[in-house]
Amino acid sequence: MRTDVVALIERVEFLLETEGVATLIEEVEDLHAEDIAQILERLEESSRVAILEALEPELASYVLIELPTETARGVVNLLPDTTVANYLDILPMDDAIDIREHLDHDRFEALLNVIPREDADEIRRLLSYPVDSAGQLMTEDFVEVGPGATMEDVLSVIREASGEYETVNYIYVLSEDRHLLGVLTLRRVLRSQPSAIAREVMNEDPITVPVEMPEEEVARVIARYGFSAVPVLDSRGRMVGIVTADDAQEVLEEAETEDVLAMGGVFGDAESYFSLSTAQLVKRRLPWLMFLFLAEFFTGTVLRHYTLEAAEAGQRILAQLMLFVPLLIGAGGNAGSQVTTTITRALALGEVSAKDWFMVVRRELVVAVVIGVTLGLLGFLRAFLPVIGWSQPISLSIIVGIALPVIIVWAAAVGSLLPIGAKAIKQDPAVMSAPFISTFVDATGLIIYFEIAILVLRFYGLQLSG
Amino acid sequence: MRTDVVALIERVEFLLETEGVATLIEEVEDLHAEDIAQILERLEESSRVAILEALEPELASYVLIELPTETARGVVNLLPDTTVANYLDILPMDDAIDIREHLDHDRFEALLNVIPREDADEIRRLLSYPVDSAGQLMTEDFVEVGPGATMEDVLSVIREASGEYETVNYIYVLSEDRHLLGVLTLRRVLRSQPSAIAREVMNEDPITVPVEMPEEEVARVIARYGFSAVPVLDSRGRMVGIVTADDAQEVLEEAETEDVLAMGGVFGDAESYFSLSTAQLVKRRLPWLMFLFLAEFFTGTVLRHYTLEAAEAGQRILAQLMLFVPLLIGAGGNAGSQVTTTITRALALGEVSAKDWFMVVRRELVVAVVIGVTLGLLGFLRAFLPVIGWSQPISLSIIVGIALPVIIVWAAAVGSLLPIGAKAIKQDPAVMSAPFISTFVDATGLIIYFEIAILVLRFYGLQLSG
Repeated sequence: MRTDVVALIERVEFLLETEGVATLIEEVEDLHAEDIAQILERLEESSRVAILEALEPELASYVLIELPTETARGVVNLLPDTTVANYLDILPMDDAIDIREHLDHDRFEALLNVIPREDADEIRRLLSYPVDSAGQLMTEDFVEVGPGATMEDVLSVIREASGEYETVNYIYVLSEDRHLLGVLTLRRVLRSQPSAIAREVMNEDPITVPVEMPEEEVARVIARYGFSAVPVLDSRGRMVGIVTADDAQEVLEEAETEDVLAMGGVFGDAESYFSLSTAQLVKRRLPWLMFLFLAEFFTGTVLRHYTLEAAEAGQRILAQLMLFVPLLIGAGGNAGSQVTTTITRALALGEVSAKDWFMVVRRELVVAVVIGVTLGLLGFLRAFLPVIGWSQPISLSIIVGIALPVIIVWAAAVGSLLPIGAKAIKQDPAVMSAPFISTFVDATGLIIYFEIAILVLRFYGLQLSG
Repeated sequence: MRTDVVALIERVEFLLETEGVATLIEEVEDLHAEDIAQILERLEESSRVAILEALEPELASYVLIELPTETARGVVNLLPDTTVANYLDILPMDDAIDIREHLDHDRFEALLNVIPREDADEIRRLLSYPVDSAGQLMTEDFVEVGPGATMEDVLSVIREASGEYETVNYIYVLSEDRHLLGVLTLRRVLRSQPSAIAREVMNEDPITVPVEMPEEEVARVIARYGFSAVPVLDSRGRMVGIVTADDAQEVLEEAETEDVLAMGGVFGDAESYFSLSTAQLVKRRLPWLMFLFLAEFFTGTVLRHYTLEAAEAGQRILAQLMLFVPLLIGAGGNAGSQVTTTITRALALGEVSAKDWFMVVRRELVVAVVIGVTLGLLGFLRAFLPVIGWSQPISLSIIVGIALPVIIVWAAAVGSLLPIGAKAIKQDPAVMSAPFISTFVDATGLIIYFEIAILVLRFYGLQLSG
């Protein structure tokens, strides 16, 4: 059964207070690293360090890399050099380089001199690739054979190799100059004649990724085809490593979290909720909120522009128009949110690319017209029926009924073009979040509303001013 | 290299027009099923059917299950019975049952009578489990041995079994009454002595899932621990199947898409963007938008309640207060969006559970106070500085400066409690989307604003009315 983490956390807190770390360790050492990490997240920093040091080092090192970045950074800074060097030594290299994020440059370099030379060299090599690229996500330990190897040879490579392969499900067939000729699955190896030759059994032309490919794209390739690993080639086409599905899954989950939060107007690295302090929560929310707030100042300016004279003159139509402001900008914002969310997700999944912009905008405008006309009719009725309490003129209903579809179509145009435009100039489309589109549509929607009001009122021989 | 699908689609459309299906097939038959499916999505229905029928049936069957639901349904209805029966026969059973979604009941039952009895029985068995549960996602084909089997026995089971295992990486050790005793990895099997006994080599006490567990939860378990498969137990603790990581990945991607879209106010199954018609796009957006629109009617009622008398009397302070309405409800909506997005994601990832409600609300209120006071100060200055163009009184600045933090704290309370409350009563927290919270905060925020205005004005010996 799956571990009930919430109950465990309570038990651990109780044990920490009453029995101390030793008893506690007995209870947690049979858990998976992921579960222990989730428990540590909720504890005090001193308890985290005490538990990590008391755990068996291999388990402790895996717990460390499962901790959220901010939490891990705090812990690593309190751990002695020998412990951290030991972790670097134990972990697969693609995980070991994650620890660098938590260390200052000098301490990391010093630690590299303590661990075995070969490991240090591999870590330095992986770090030379671009940040968050396939090169930093991959492992150099994969099972490789020559094209002339028999199935028996392949099995003995797996049996006898000292390397700590993350996966042995795929065996890569490499030429002498390290070009990838084909791939064998372990199942295929077991089911073929022991004397069969790799060249004849292998699948040729496997899907590969370049070492500079951003890690999120690599993860999407693995997810798309349901692979358990994908080979990584350097710029000269030589195979340098593999990225495994479990690492890809983590990258994808973090990327999804960052996208979802960005769509809600929260920017920052994916960090688990309770690992962030309130100061950090403020820091990742306030700047964007202030930006939107300052942008929203413009709505006041727009309102003032259109209403100053009428207000000075105490015009009744103005008070009536004002009653519909939240309804109109609300509808525009909600319609725009739907569009931008849909398009941003389709871009993230690769269902839509920047090249498709015309097709997307055309579809969205058709949809917006249908939606706009429907809501426009409802808005007309709302303004027409005597629920407002004033003897409102028909002109008010006409203004609301026309303004709604126009604002909704405008919101759809903005909500589809902005994320696609961001993608086209290689920016993150998720920045064009629902709150951003809503705020943008607030001010511009009001301009549309009042311009339509002026036109309609003029038609009735009225004007919006003293 | 990864296939450039966009270029391929253009090429396929060109070939369809000029050369016909036969030439086209030669170009696509070496592609992965996922890529062919993406191409078919963008073609006419008649072309989709023609290409599927021309493809080699095994490939065609995998292409079919990669198609979005709506597209697949259309295609299956145009394919002859023999072709569909052939697909059912070829596909792994957990994929085959997905085809049922596209068929009406009678046709599906008729097809089950055509395919081999054993397959039909397995399909019926899987379908007897709850919809979208582990039971419908799992495969019954996994490698199993008894506790006394040697490593040599294990390898010959893998070599000789006729079953089409989705994975052979894990070998499950079962007792005679089919209880799961432990798990062996294939790597471990290869590296142990051929004469070693399963009981002694296996990992005991593996993580399992119950057959009724919702598929999204199963997928989260697999993702959390980085497994490539997880064993599934029935209600009596007997092992009945395994769920593999590639299927889990697909479930997770669909669930993420549905969550993201719901947060933007779009409800429906995950379907790729271009596979939906404009009518379907309208259908999944309009109902919610209408609901929000009708809810937003309430803001008009609130405004009228507070402003009727003042408007009739032509009060200047009313026009000044109205200028800040979009700013206040915009800030409340944006702050609420951030909170609800953050909490909904944390709930989806299992970082936060309904039990944590008090801790979450306390944190969110602290954050909201800091954010609210900051924006309140900015709002005060905005109202105070002579940019509005009227000689506005200090009372206006005080009203705005007090109302902003109160509305933002209110939005944070609503934005955190509603998703947690939804989770507590087993509803989807994503329904408490950013647009919903914004709309809710619009009307209630206005009540807060005007109540504060009345209080402050009274302090200055004024009142909001004739």
